[in-house]
Amino acid sequence: MAYSAVERRLSTIAASVEAALDGVLSLEAGAGETARPSRLVEAMRYAMLGGGKRLRPALVVLTAELFRADTAGALRAGLAVECVHGYSLIHDDLPAMDDDALRRGRPTLHRAFDEATAILAGDALLTLAFDLLAAPATHPDADVRIGLVAELARAAGVGGMVGGQMLDLAAEGRFSDAPGGPQDEAAVLRLQAMKTGALIAAPIAMGAALGGATPEQRAALTAYGRALGAAFQVADDLLDVEGEAATVGKATGKDAAAGKATLVAALGVEGARRRLVDLTAQASGALSPFGADADGLRDLARFVAERQA
Amino acid sequence: MAYSAVERRLSTIAASVEAALDGVLSLEAGAGETARPSRLVEAMRYAMLGGGKRLRPALVVLTAELFRADTAGALRAGLAVECVHGYSLIHDDLPAMDDDALRRGRPTLHRAFDEATAILAGDALLTLAFDLLAAPATHPDADVRIGLVAELARAAGVGGMVGGQMLDLAAEGRFSDAPGGPQDEAAVLRLQAMKTGALIAAPIAMGAALGGATPEQRAALTAYGRALGAAFQVADDLLDVEGEAATVGKATGKDAAAGKATLVAALGVEGARRRLVDLTAQASGALSPFGADADGLRDLARFVAERQA
Repeated sequence: MAYSAVERRLSTIAASVEAALDGVLSLEAGAGETARPSRLVEAMRYAMLGGGKRLRPALVVLTAELFRADTAGALRAGLAVECVHGYSLIHDDLPAMDDDALRRGRPTLHRAFDEATAILAGDALLTLAFDLLAAPATHPDADVRIGLVAELARAAGVGGMVGGQMLDLAAEGRFSDAPGGPQDEAAVLRLQAMKTGALIAAPIAMGAALGGATPEQRAALTAYGRALGAAFQVADDLLDVEGEAATVGKATGKDAAAGKATLVAALGVEGARRRLVDLTAQASGALSPFGADADGLRDLARFVAERQA
Repeated sequence: MAYSAVERRLSTIAASVEAALDGVLSLEAGAGETARPSRLVEAMRYAMLGGGKRLRPALVVLTAELFRADTAGALRAGLAVECVHGYSLIHDDLPAMDDDALRRGRPTLHRAFDEATAILAGDALLTLAFDLLAAPATHPDADVRIGLVAELARAAGVGGMVGGQMLDLAAEGRFSDAPGGPQDEAAVLRLQAMKTGALIAAPIAMGAALGGATPEQRAALTAYGRALGAAFQVADDLLDVEGEAATVGKATGKDAAAGKATLVAALGVEGARRRLVDLTAQASGALSPFGADADGLRDLARFVAERQA
């Protein structure tokens, strides 16, 4: 798959994600539910619909395709990861957290609605993620579905994404029991592996589980996921330094101002660029057991490294 | 089981819950985790340890016992429900929500720590709940475990607890797109069935699933759970009007001040008391297929109706 081909594929997957989310985030009460408050559903729709790269669902779908696994099930598992991603952005943007006003070029959810609604919409999306994974439509085998639940819960929890967000706030010197200030490279890598890496690696592991990967194949995909997650975050840190706010869709230059722990702060811009090249090569190399079948995932890694937004 | 016997049983279960939570909320990183930030774990422990009636875990355990199901697995499923309950209290207490200063006689989590930590600790507990359910220690059969995940996600989500909290805020007139003000009885019942009823009914349904209940048995337990959840909330509303803050462990009289939708507001104190008696009888009657085996659950319903805190 050439570079433009992976972009086309991402667009197709993103359109499927958008359509599927539109269906899932419905006002109609589901089985066993009493009612769905319209303001809450509208808030969830505001946060989740209307674009985004949908990178995480694409990772589930492209990984599952390596094994010719059912695409509809992979898409559904991808929706669950996207809901967790969406909830994390809503809560990260809150006044008590990063206090952001813009997200993808629009007012953040608590600005467009209100803070209470934003907290609850995030809570509801996190819960919905596990609801989606639990349904037989994701995979006929309960063992596989419960494996997806375990994978996503671990990636999102206290030892993963939420823990990483906590370390990030601590690095800013937000808490009196932690000094904050510049972090060394090892601390930044650990923080980023948790805060963003875990939710890049998880959809790849979930795609592998849906495809019934062998332990060797899982190990190769885990190595790919780790390198890709790290590359994603380096690209993000570089964008915050070098990107235009209009293209990125949110305020740039915020990391340095907030004293955020970034790899650019630890390695400098040139050092971070070199690291990005290394990580992309690592991600690509990890896929060697799959040969040319994994060219889509390789191109995706290149796309992630070179993205401008 | 006599009344004092159910109190003793609740104490025993509460001690087991406390010990199990102490183990689960550990600083040690679990399998596949990078690290657990100590401040976040301390916050989760502050919110979850140190007492509480542990009613929801007791409901899983006592229901599972009707079927002689494994108690250790039931306790673990009960921990998951307790984590969801704990997260909901943390988020409900936040300044943007109910802005409460006290919970069980101690400063609320965002007062004892800070708002960002409280948001993340709630998020982490919700995530942990599904992690707990996913592990084989809860039940050897993946079909049963995935059923528990589905049950809990539905009870906690947009059509359940979180949706109920949203309706509750709307009833207070918090949002410009909803008028708020006094709610009629039907609206209060719907709101309360979602906000608190769903997370009383869910552990009963989960105990039934762990025990391999027949459809008829499930239906009986569902009826019990609905009546018990409603009774719990009426008792709570009455406590807010009649209870002493020192006994209840949080500010009382707050519901009326906030214009909360309560059954006391809709029916008056005497009407609410009569309703409580009816609901307790309903809960008890629903269990008739189980005969005397269900006396523990009957006594529990009486305990819930008569509790002073």
